[in-house]
Amino acid sequence: MVTPIDPTATAFLLAENRHMPMHVGGLQLFEKPAGAGPHYVREMYEQMRDVEEIAPLFLKRPHRSLRTAGQLVWVPDEDFDVEHHVRHSALPEPGRYRELFELCSRLHSTRLAWERPLWESHVIEGLADGKVALYTKSHHALVDGVSAMRLLQSVLGTDPDERDMPAPWGYRPPTRSKALATTRDRSLAELPLRAARTALGISAEAAGMPSALVRTLARGVRNETTTVSLRTPRTMFNRPITGARRFAAQDWPIERLHAIGRATGTTLNDVVLAMCSGAMRAYLLELDALPDQPMVAMVPVGLNAKSSHIASADGGNAVGAVLAQLATHLEDPADRLRSIHRSMVDGKEALSSMTPTQIIAMTAMGQAPAIIPPLLRMQGIVRSPYNLIISNVPGPRTTHYWNGARMTGVYPLSIPINGMALNITCTSYDGQMAFGLTGCRRTVPHLQRLLTFLEDEVAALEKAAGVE
Amino acid sequence: MVTPIDPTATAFLLAENRHMPMHVGGLQLFEKPAGAGPHYVREMYEQMRDVEEIAPLFLKRPHRSLRTAGQLVWVPDEDFDVEHHVRHSALPEPGRYRELFELCSRLHSTRLAWERPLWESHVIEGLADGKVALYTKSHHALVDGVSAMRLLQSVLGTDPDERDMPAPWGYRPPTRSKALATTRDRSLAELPLRAARTALGISAEAAGMPSALVRTLARGVRNETTTVSLRTPRTMFNRPITGARRFAAQDWPIERLHAIGRATGTTLNDVVLAMCSGAMRAYLLELDALPDQPMVAMVPVGLNAKSSHIASADGGNAVGAVLAQLATHLEDPADRLRSIHRSMVDGKEALSSMTPTQIIAMTAMGQAPAIIPPLLRMQGIVRSPYNLIISNVPGPRTTHYWNGARMTGVYPLSIPINGMALNITCTSYDGQMAFGLTGCRRTVPHLQRLLTFLEDEVAALEKAAGVE
Repeated sequence: MVTPIDPTATAFLLAENRHMPMHVGGLQLFEKPAGAGPHYVREMYEQMRDVEEIAPLFLKRPHRSLRTAGQLVWVPDEDFDVEHHVRHSALPEPGRYRELFELCSRLHSTRLAWERPLWESHVIEGLADGKVALYTKSHHALVDGVSAMRLLQSVLGTDPDERDMPAPWGYRPPTRSKALATTRDRSLAELPLRAARTALGISAEAAGMPSALVRTLARGVRNETTTVSLRTPRTMFNRPITGARRFAAQDWPIERLHAIGRATGTTLNDVVLAMCSGAMRAYLLELDALPDQPMVAMVPVGLNAKSSHIASADGGNAVGAVLAQLATHLEDPADRLRSIHRSMVDGKEALSSMTPTQIIAMTAMGQAPAIIPPLLRMQGIVRSPYNLIISNVPGPRTTHYWNGARMTGVYPLSIPINGMALNITCTSYDGQMAFGLTGCRRTVPHLQRLLTFLEDEVAALEKAAGVE
Repeated sequence: MVTPIDPTATAFLLAENRHMPMHVGGLQLFEKPAGAGPHYVREMYEQMRDVEEIAPLFLKRPHRSLRTAGQLVWVPDEDFDVEHHVRHSALPEPGRYRELFELCSRLHSTRLAWERPLWESHVIEGLADGKVALYTKSHHALVDGVSAMRLLQSVLGTDPDERDMPAPWGYRPPTRSKALATTRDRSLAELPLRAARTALGISAEAAGMPSALVRTLARGVRNETTTVSLRTPRTMFNRPITGARRFAAQDWPIERLHAIGRATGTTLNDVVLAMCSGAMRAYLLELDALPDQPMVAMVPVGLNAKSSHIASADGGNAVGAVLAQLATHLEDPADRLRSIHRSMVDGKEALSSMTPTQIIAMTAMGQAPAIIPPLLRMQGIVRSPYNLIISNVPGPRTTHYWNGARMTGVYPLSIPINGMALNITCTSYDGQMAFGLTGCRRTVPHLQRLLTFLEDEVAALEKAAGVE
């Protein structure tokens, strides 16, 4: 059955080239269940591979021909080969996280070929600590980053004894899904999926043509309705990129970050941004590439529906985006945290004075990083109003399992684009805050150094806040 | 610099689709040198990756645009990323050859994207026996199978103490190559590369248009100038294929095969064919798919330049091809071997009565399996005159090393095509005869069973010849 591809998805497919693969990734770590045999990983792989039925989302591929008048359409893959999509891989010795990140970097660097459904998943063994990793990549034309992470987590449960749980790509009949939903952690439902979909819907509209919305967005940026300064400095991250990726990730106990926040009167998100700011400052100083002016990050934020103008359909949270000045020009960690906190408060205030359309438009820039900048350029805004995107996607708060295997961590891999060579996405899960850094390997050298600098910054902030 | 792509290479590029990737592969096994440290494989990988300069063959990619008037041309890759092409991989536990073959199968299933130079090489660790594997794939538009194997071996040497040996893709200045050549085993020069190139040159001509040559070839097939019967049975191997590959390989001591040959008055090649015949018979019987008529294999053979009509440029060997009846309808292993021997003698006699052009044309069918059948079809020959290709490529006779690592085996991966779902290529090296089986995973189920049947057949032939 041939189905049309919506304009957003089409835009993601067409924006893609060798230097800018348009897929999002997720890395999950699992602890083998007690009593797992020597062939556990193979069995886990086979369980993932041998699903009864694949969900339609994972069976379709893009197609364009004379018969479709040159339009991109989805067609079912008549020769679907699950072994092409679900793979069993292993790490070279000594099986450190360094080797895992290298493999993920490599897997994340390669484009998904249009001739097959646009996803791949690797069950990875060989970690020295005995954990099993699952790296999954899906084209942005199928799912955005938030939905992808949510999809990966939607098959998990809180009961370590539950078995016969499906793979993320397994077809789940609606009745079964509903039944499962009641046994799942409600925190999954906290992800602002509907809001994100709305934003994507808007950017879909925007993708077609520089519409009234894009003009609104451009006005928003020009009029500095937020804390945006058009004098955002140009950094080494804001250059053309290549297709090679480097990925690194690590997590920190949320309690450590909360303690800093409590002692300084700042939010968890402020502390996360301060960590990124300090790490980036140290990284750029080492490379003698720190700009004089403070760097600006685009930060998607949750908004209380009551205090904002947006009434989300279920009365829950809405999503907006703030352009936060990262205070990378300041030497003192405490000064940076204070400055970031002020910038975020200002930004959210500015956001609450924006119209719903303006908020959604701002958000669209974060949700559709690849297709919005060209549209802004068409409006005469040639320089991106931010240096990078730092997003913080809340995940489940309690321990989750897949068929008895405890998930110990989940790390997002995102999409660097031309002019935005580094992306930082954080996810919280089970008391930990995970940082996933995805960068262009050439434009962002030694990306893994940022992890060290993030740790240094936590320590520095703890010292400054007196909570060591 | 833009250079035109010759017609053969163009044909290979255009013949390719998702179901029929057009690359050849080579798998080499190495034993770590004495005193190798725990990071030996990583160091080997880095040595392969960090070549001073990449040879031009490995730097070009195909390109077609309006500026080239729609013609395919080679362009240099301006953003060449060696880490995309040279990779470090590992096997899942327990690291048997089964896991190695699975990884090679998967790597061999994926098409090389035209947006980059058309090759990849994987340094693979994790074999339980401690060996290191090197899997290399190159598009047939760059090199044919024989040249690919030769290229892989051209950087090896016989001196276990020699170091600073280059990777196969490293640029070797002509002077240095010459100097090296004198220290290399002369047996490498025995590979009939020039003859193969000649055949490719001819098929290049044939690829452009059904020329006089293809008509000659078609006449050759029709007139049964060789032992060809057009009543070649249709088997389960002669069906459309998918893009999924299965690879399996094993080697046997050449001395075992020689002993059978000596006792029965047959050649080494006859024994190799008898092994394939017996294995295929057992395999097809098990699947209840054995045809009543004997199967026919296309077998490239070396010809003594003096007794054939072809004078090869260096007075060495020339190459022809014989269509051998495999006697798969006979129950007794000794009968099969005798029948194959007769068929090969007849074939070679027929070959020596052919004109040079006819011989080269026959050869072209073996050298360019993907592009010749359509040309034959244009001549009204709709059914392939053979069921599969079995080739035997001689390799070095003595032990070879790469920077101190002893090569213990070398196995070719070939190209199954529509209507020819299984390919068997043998290489001899250092006293062993290696069989590399490459098949479509769906069309040729449980391909690895053929290895068991090959071993059974060696034993049966030994028993029949009284050399157990």
